[in-house]
Amino acid sequence: MVKFASSVSGMRSSEIRDMMSLATKPGIISFAGGMPDNRLLPVKELDDIYSKLTDSEKQKGLQYGPTNGLPELREALKKYLQAKGLPVSDNELLITTGATQAINILAKAFINPGDTIITENPCFIAATSSFKAHEANIVSVESGENGINVDALKEILDNLCEKPKFVYITPNFHNPSGALCPLSVKQELIKVLTHRDIVLIEDDCYSDLAFDRKGDADDLKTIKSLNPQGIDVCYIGSFSKILGPGLRLGWMLVPKYIYDKCELIKQPIDACSSSLSQVIAEKFLNTGRVKTYVESVVPLYKERCNTMCTLLRDLLPNGVSFTQPKGGFYLWLTLPDNIDATDVLKRSIDKSVVFVIGKTFDPYARKNNTIRLSFCNTSVDDIKLGVPKIVDSIKEVMSIN
Amino acid sequence: MVKFASSVSGMRSSEIRDMMSLATKPGIISFAGGMPDNRLLPVKELDDIYSKLTDSEKQKGLQYGPTNGLPELREALKKYLQAKGLPVSDNELLITTGATQAINILAKAFINPGDTIITENPCFIAATSSFKAHEANIVSVESGENGINVDALKEILDNLCEKPKFVYITPNFHNPSGALCPLSVKQELIKVLTHRDIVLIEDDCYSDLAFDRKGDADDLKTIKSLNPQGIDVCYIGSFSKILGPGLRLGWMLVPKYIYDKCELIKQPIDACSSSLSQVIAEKFLNTGRVKTYVESVVPLYKERCNTMCTLLRDLLPNGVSFTQPKGGFYLWLTLPDNIDATDVLKRSIDKSVVFVIGKTFDPYARKNNTIRLSFCNTSVDDIKLGVPKIVDSIKEVMSIN
Repeated sequence: MVKFASSVSGMRSSEIRDMMSLATKPGIISFAGGMPDNRLLPVKELDDIYSKLTDSEKQKGLQYGPTNGLPELREALKKYLQAKGLPVSDNELLITTGATQAINILAKAFINPGDTIITENPCFIAATSSFKAHEANIVSVESGENGINVDALKEILDNLCEKPKFVYITPNFHNPSGALCPLSVKQELIKVLTHRDIVLIEDDCYSDLAFDRKGDADDLKTIKSLNPQGIDVCYIGSFSKILGPGLRLGWMLVPKYIYDKCELIKQPIDACSSSLSQVIAEKFLNTGRVKTYVESVVPLYKERCNTMCTLLRDLLPNGVSFTQPKGGFYLWLTLPDNIDATDVLKRSIDKSVVFVIGKTFDPYARKNNTIRLSFCNTSVDDIKLGVPKIVDSIKEVMSIN
Repeated sequence: MVKFASSVSGMRSSEIRDMMSLATKPGIISFAGGMPDNRLLPVKELDDIYSKLTDSEKQKGLQYGPTNGLPELREALKKYLQAKGLPVSDNELLITTGATQAINILAKAFINPGDTIITENPCFIAATSSFKAHEANIVSVESGENGINVDALKEILDNLCEKPKFVYITPNFHNPSGALCPLSVKQELIKVLTHRDIVLIEDDCYSDLAFDRKGDADDLKTIKSLNPQGIDVCYIGSFSKILGPGLRLGWMLVPKYIYDKCELIKQPIDACSSSLSQVIAEKFLNTGRVKTYVESVVPLYKERCNTMCTLLRDLLPNGVSFTQPKGGFYLWLTLPDNIDATDVLKRSIDKSVVFVIGKTFDPYARKNNTIRLSFCNTSVDDIKLGVPKIVDSIKEVMSIN
């Protein structure tokens, strides 16, 4: 047997994998997955777009494209991002094979084995996996209902022997915590990071899924759109939540010098992202269907979220807390310190309900008293059936009858 | 400015990039690209397949799939590979985002910085780039009209201080050399590698494009299908040449212990390959359209190849040699030792004809007296116009009038 490279080990949580396999079994009510509901995917829109493609566009979809993305998609996406206030003309856009690849390319760009990088805790698991695969020394900073704890971050930065290469955060509708980081916290974060020569990676896959776009307009502003001077912000986005993850399309909007490296890195990884997906995504953008589609599904996610929150508020025992999400896919439950989420999960599985324990999203897998509930992929009826069973399981573990 | 990781440098030949950009200009006759002809891509077949997809299949195409690939595609591909004699039941199949990703994942799996690996010389440039990106010590072995020089390989293996992790070869219709490695050479190679604990990566993206499938049946056998005992063979294939590169779909068929690592590695790279592409590729396989499509285009590639060979035989001066390709996309010209291919290229560009100089495919970029001519993406008429101009350019540099 040939020896593997040293960096290849334990990159994926087997817990997540087992959970996902369980989650797709018939009869199981799942709050585990972070994917859109199959029934809500834009099939009609896809049909409509496909039916209008010319032969030449279909040829383009079957052919190699430039590594940085099809020019038509890059143009359409620039307009889309510009309308959201993002500084597209001062930065370069790289189309990637999902936001996951964007994270992975940035990890490759910056991390030498042993380099320190900073994440939130909890953190998106594919990001943690990618940073571990690049043998980063991960330092994680507490992230709560207002996003990253900036004071804690500042203290860490002031005391670290080695300067971290980057800080990776998901300020809008965090996965898994669901939190929307308020504008004031974003502004504090900018202050702390300015002129430190630390890149900020802003993962923004969920902000289009705001339940109250107007009411939360200020807090929804991305850090990249604030265009802070003195910090290199790498902004990551995705078509997965606004169109369909099966297309495997995401992007990064980054300073030119970082773009140049990242394009070089992408070339031997997969040459280019799916051209067929890119042709389709371009049409979704240019026909305005992304906007109308998102506007049609967000109220459904909101209804699911509200149903879940109402049930939890009515049923949860004292000592278990959560913050009502303002958008996105996830709700984060915090149990009392001494309550083991794995015990709750086991009892829920006995009741045919699954979710993911919060520990999975802790880079160090330490404390085990949190739970991620996805409301994106479960009908209102199933939420009404499933949530009480989770509450029952929590009560059992807390010995409350 | 934040310092990049040390491994990120010079991963793509700027020569190739410039050439590709030149190759797509109007009025230019290009023998540069390694992509199928747009006009030959299976647009009608795609329409037919799309029109028959159910809503549930379209949903699947828009949704995340398992990291190792959609079960339906894996089953269809297993049948396809089994019919070609590949040992699918003793191995595991991983769907990848193009063969390029398969190479990149295997590089990640095996290469620690400084590890020795062996390639052919010349070698597929994306493979070389990937191995360099993983900081491999690349040792390359001469590869000619009969594929890798097995004696030279044996000598290197016997004399290397450090055992290489793997040997990477493209035995069937090599990119760039076009060579079909005869069965006898494959058998010698097996002998040399048996029980050495060195993985063999067999890149087989072109073997479906044989001009005389029956006549060359023996030589077309893949090493993996010979199922040699005592060597772990990682077999790589792609839909790019038999369906369309824009789908970004390839695969690896590898021993279980290697598959397990590679699936782990793929997860944080891009989660899964495009589901939409996978749904379509499965239909191409299960409806038999891959077979009928390939059978319809191979005679066209053969005609282009024959046209090119006839012209070259008629026009080339003494001292310039080539072997007539038996399939694939490429023809390899060897100029006299003292003739500089870059000079020939410059003069060809002045005549509005482009190709890629052979040095681009040399991991060390040393000798510069070879030329790769792609016949896959150029019409017979353009071949008749373009090849004489290349010959004229060669004659000019050789000072022959």
